[in-house]
Parts: sequence; C-alpha cells; structure tokens
Amino acid sequence: MVNIAILGYGIVGSGVAEVIQETAALIDARTGFKLSVKTILDIRQFPGDPFAKHFVSDFSVIERDPSIQIVAECIGGVGAAYEFTKRALHAGKHVVTSNKELVAEHGAELLTLARANRTHYLFEAAVGGGIPLIHPMAQCLSANSISDIAGILNGTCNYILTRMRDNSFTFDEALLEAQKLGYAESDPTDDIMGHDSARKICILASLIFGRHVFPGRVQTGGIQNITLEQLKEAAANGFTIKLLGRAQGVQSGEPPTVYVAPHLVPQGNPLYTVDDVYNGILLSGDIVGDVLFYGRGAGKRPTASAIVSDMLDCLRGGDPLGGLTWDDIPVNVTSPGSIKEGEHYVFADGTAMRILS
Amino acid sequence: MVNIAILGYGIVGSGVAEVIQETAALIDARTGFKLSVKTILDIRQFPGDPFAKHFVSDFSVIERDPSIQIVAECIGGVGAAYEFTKRALHAGKHVVTSNKELVAEHGAELLTLARANRTHYLFEAAVGGGIPLIHPMAQCLSANSISDIAGILNGTCNYILTRMRDNSFTFDEALLEAQKLGYAESDPTDDIMGHDSARKICILASLIFGRHVFPGRVQTGGIQNITLEQLKEAAANGFTIKLLGRAQGVQSGEPPTVYVAPHLVPQGNPLYTVDDVYNGILLSGDIVGDVLFYGRGAGKRPTASAIVSDMLDCLRGGDPLGGLTWDDIPVNVTSPGSIKEGEHYVFADGTAMRILS
Repeated sequence: MVNIAILGYGIVGSGVAEVIQETAALIDARTGFKLSVKTILDIRQFPGDPFAKHFVSDFSVIERDPSIQIVAECIGGVGAAYEFTKRALHAGKHVVTSNKELVAEHGAELLTLARANRTHYLFEAAVGGGIPLIHPMAQCLSANSISDIAGILNGTCNYILTRMRDNSFTFDEALLEAQKLGYAESDPTDDIMGHDSARKICILASLIFGRHVFPGRVQTGGIQNITLEQLKEAAANGFTIKLLGRAQGVQSGEPPTVYVAPHLVPQGNPLYTVDDVYNGILLSGDIVGDVLFYGRGAGKRPTASAIVSDMLDCLRGGDPLGGLTWDDIPVNVTSPGSIKEGEHYVFADGTAMRILS
Repeated sequence: MVNIAILGYGIVGSGVAEVIQETAALIDARTGFKLSVKTILDIRQFPGDPFAKHFVSDFSVIERDPSIQIVAECIGGVGAAYEFTKRALHAGKHVVTSNKELVAEHGAELLTLARANRTHYLFEAAVGGGIPLIHPMAQCLSANSISDIAGILNGTCNYILTRMRDNSFTFDEALLEAQKLGYAESDPTDDIMGHDSARKICILASLIFGRHVFPGRVQTGGIQNITLEQLKEAAANGFTIKLLGRAQGVQSGEPPTVYVAPHLVPQGNPLYTVDDVYNGILLSGDIVGDVLFYGRGAGKRPTASAIVSDMLDCLRGGDPLGGLTWDDIPVNVTSPGSIKEGEHYVFADGTAMRILS
C-alpha cells in the first residue's frame, strides 16, 4: 500500500483523489503499486464527499505520519504550498505537483532539497497539463542537447485566438465565452498577459539550460492587443497567430534567449493546427531533430493523469529526471531584441510580429 | 563503465556507435552512467573505421563476455536477430532494438524471456524512430486506458503522399525521388504496401491491449493505388490523404479492431500537418484525452537517439515499461468491416476511403 496525501481539495486535488480511486486496480495490475488516498488537507469542510473522513486541517498531521510516502501539492501559489512542500521533502516524502508558479520561482531550491533528502520533486503536470513532456524530455531525449523550444503553453489564450479567427469573435467576446466555459479565470490577467506561459517556458528553459530562469527576468507579451483584423490578415497570408513561449540556446558562454510573445505560425508548421484549449510544444534536439508533444494543457482529469504518473515515477526508483535538473544559479537571459531584427511581418495597422521559422 | 555490444554495423548500428561516442560526456554528467562501445558484431570488415578494433564476427564472444551489460540489436529481420536476442537475454544482458519486425512477430516471447532473466527488452526506436512514444505511453500514461490510436507510422509513404499533393508528382515520380534521397528502399514493397505500418501498429496495439496482435492477422492496405486526382479532390474538400495504422478497443470481451489503410484526414485534425518524412501518433486516453507525438520516424541519428535512451532506461532500475507489456496469447482482431460502414468519402473515380473522425 502506497499512502498518498493530497494538499488542497480544489479542482486539481479532487481530480487526483478521483483518478486514484478510479484507476487503482488498473495501476496495481500494471505496476504492482497500490495507491491509496490516506489524508487530504483542506481548511474547508466537504460533508457528504466520498473522501470526507480523510480530511485534516493541520499539515503537521501529514508531516508526522511516516506511512505517507507521497504528497500531491494541489494548493497552488507560492505561500502555503512553498512551506508545506519544503516540510514534506524534509520529512522524507516525495512531492508531486502541477504548481507551475512554485516550480518556476523556487524549483532549483526544491529540487536540491529533494536530492538532499533522497526524495523526488516532480512536476510533469506543471507544463502542458496531461501531456507527457518533462518525463520524455528527461528520459527519452537524454542523449540530446535541446537547443530550441517553441510552445503553445496556455490553453485559455489559444482558445480565445481560435474563436476570434474561426468565429469572428472580438477579443472581449471570446474571453467572455472562455470564462463562461470555465477555460478562463474571472481575473484572466495571468493568462492573457502571458505570465502563465512565462512560468511554463521558464521551467522548460531551466531544464534544458541547467540554470534557474526566473519569470521576472523574461520579456513577456500577451494577446490582449490582438485584433480580429490581424487574425484575418494573418490567415490571408498563410499564417495563424499563436502566443508562444520561446527558449533558444546559443553558443556556449552566451546567455540563452527566453521570452513570451505572439507569433505568426506558418501553415505547415506542426504548431499551426494546435487549436482551441490544446497545447503543443515543439522541441529541437541535436540528434533527434524536431519533436512535438500535443494534448490538453489543463483540466481536472488531464492534470490529475500527469500527477498520478509522477507518483508512479517516484516509486520506480532511480532518477526520474534523468539528470535533467537545474542548479540554484540564476541565469541571465537575453530579451530577443527589437522585433524588427528577427524575421517578422508588419500588419496593415503598423504592428510588427515575429514569424516562427 | 557500462559496456555495450552492437549487433550489426549498418546504418542503425553505426549510428548507435557514433551517438554513444558523441554524447558519452553529456550522458555521464546528466546520469552518472558511462556508456562505452566494447564490441561490435559484423561479418564485414571496416578497415579504417574508428571502431575497427572492436569488431568480432562470432556472437558467442559477446554472449560469454560478462562485462557486457547491454546489447543493441541492429541486425533487423527475424533470423539471426531473433536467435542472438534470445541468447543475449538468456545470458542476462539487456537488449534494446529498433527491429519492429522482430518485436511484432516475437515480442511477447522476448518480453517473457527478459522478465525470466531479470533483464529488459526495450524497443522505443521500433515505432516512430526517435519520437518518445512507447516510454511515455508506459510511464506517463500509466493511469490511462488507451482506447484509440491513429498513427502516421511510415515516413516513406508520408513523403510520397506529400510530394504528390504539394508538387503534383505521380506516385512513380515521388517514389523514385524518395529512393534517390534514401527515404525508400530499392524494393519499397514493405513500405508502400503498408506492411511496415502494420508491424508498428501491431506493437502499439499489443501494448495497449496486453495481448499479442500479429501483423499477419491485420487487414493491411497501402498507398500504391492513390492517384494525384484523389489527392487534389481530397484537398478541394478540406482533407489530406494519409496512410494510417489504427487500433481501437471496443467493449470488454469484444476483440479490438486493428488495421492499416489510407484515410482522409480533415483539416484541423492534428495529423493533418504531419507531412514529409515525419511520423505522428495520436492516442486517446480515458483520462488525459487526445495526445499527439510527432517527429522523425526514421533516420540514423533519430533512431540511435531512441536506442541510447532505452539503454539509460535499462540502467535506471524498476520496470521501464511500467507494466504496459503483453502476454504471449494471440488476440483475434476484427477487420474494420466494409469501408462503407464507417464514415467514408467516395471519390469521383468511385473509390471509397475512410474519414478519420
């Protein structure tokens, strides 16, 4: 029996509990590991919930329970989540999470702490939701140096841009619809201004460059100024507009380039068909060439799928990240310079936009 | 030091030797494993080759060398490759390969033999070349039941179809060019008749259904009868033609459906933009939803990249396939029935073709 604690019983946390219960027999048959939700931390009450008798409101109950091997941190943010993650790792428990903000801000420290305590800190779900991405980067591409990443990392932005292009919605109409459907938060700033994408590209950049890339140092643009006219003009010229996180390594010794900005993606590029709430991440490895990973970048069940797979990866033994980790050394990243310097397109309204090449 | 033996020094085998030499320092830094090519089996002579002094012509030299931990089987086919794989596993060595024919015909037996000898038999490179696919299916999607696979699994066919569509080449012209570029064999039967795709979809189907799906039992169509007119007519209707391997699970107790046939792929489907020699594999998991993996499905270096990553996966410990293996029990597969039964399109020339939905 592998006892699990879940911190936070919101959308992600309740999804993890649900998926563990639903798939426990399948996972046992496949791997021999019997996952079981023992304790759930939340200060709220959930009367009538199937897990009602598992709730505690004090983290130290989990911290002091030696039978709990894995903690799923589903709180989010960098407050209690940060404190409880450190305490769980100190207590010798593995921690798995979808908390991109915490990984992007404190990943290096937490990875170091995990190593020191012979535990794992894994975050497959933090980038690309349920899409297997960090694990294949670490394991399958272990012989590759990855020099270029271009990622559609935010499903909310991608949904809005798709609805504007295909249904002639204005930005405001598309945003309102996304909010109604639960794809966008009531305060959508983090998504539409590119901050969420910045956290995610920083995690990927840190993995491939081996140094901590902080979101605050990364030039970040959003989709708030994209117009229906620009989308139509792009389509007429064989492009579609996507918000991309980019990470590009350059000559050794030179700082890498990391940024978030809307791009024109040409027809024929594999990112061109990544629409709606889907995410797509294109990696370029020196041996394998271009590889694309595509799937649902968010949502209760896809996110829970990735968190549960990380649990199994903790239990397998060996190093789940295959050495593709990063040190607690901040790295300087260059901004991509003037947009006029790269290959770009100038719209009829005078706006310049980078072309993904 | 992890001593490696390579069986067969053709394109794949020499690529493996080259990639190990090139990436040994990087892999050591990332994982602590020092890979080293100790012995290469080939009956040919390679005077002047950088590995010239490592050659042997007798497999028993490798079989009896206790210092060799991993054997990369790069012979291909089901003759010597089959015999040497069994002997290597019996001798307690891990075997990694890109040999899809051997895995498709004898995978269950070899996986069982590996388990019995506490070794691993891994074949990431056998499907989708360098694309991380089998490993993420096994590890990251371990909580999912995969019920549907649609894969562009043969780069030669995809290249021919792309050139016909985009450059108005006839089938024969496109094939001739593919042969000149080294994308197609001088005898291209296996590729264009769909047999290569059948082996690959059988491997994936065996993994998801847990029973051995034999290529000989799978209805297999190729691209030899696709005309330029059909490609133009498809494009005019918002489709592109792709040769797909399909595996679909149905109600429990019912046999799964596995087949290879040309399909009309609608614009907007993520497989629509998978062109040229690229492969794309779309999986549908019950929890994660749709996931696509895309990249180079063949080639010396992408294939070697996957073979080397499998070596590291053998060394990590635990079960690399996460229990996603299959038993030595042949499964009946149903043919997809009359093409008229599914969603289909009838060309002006009277040919009916299935639409990927």
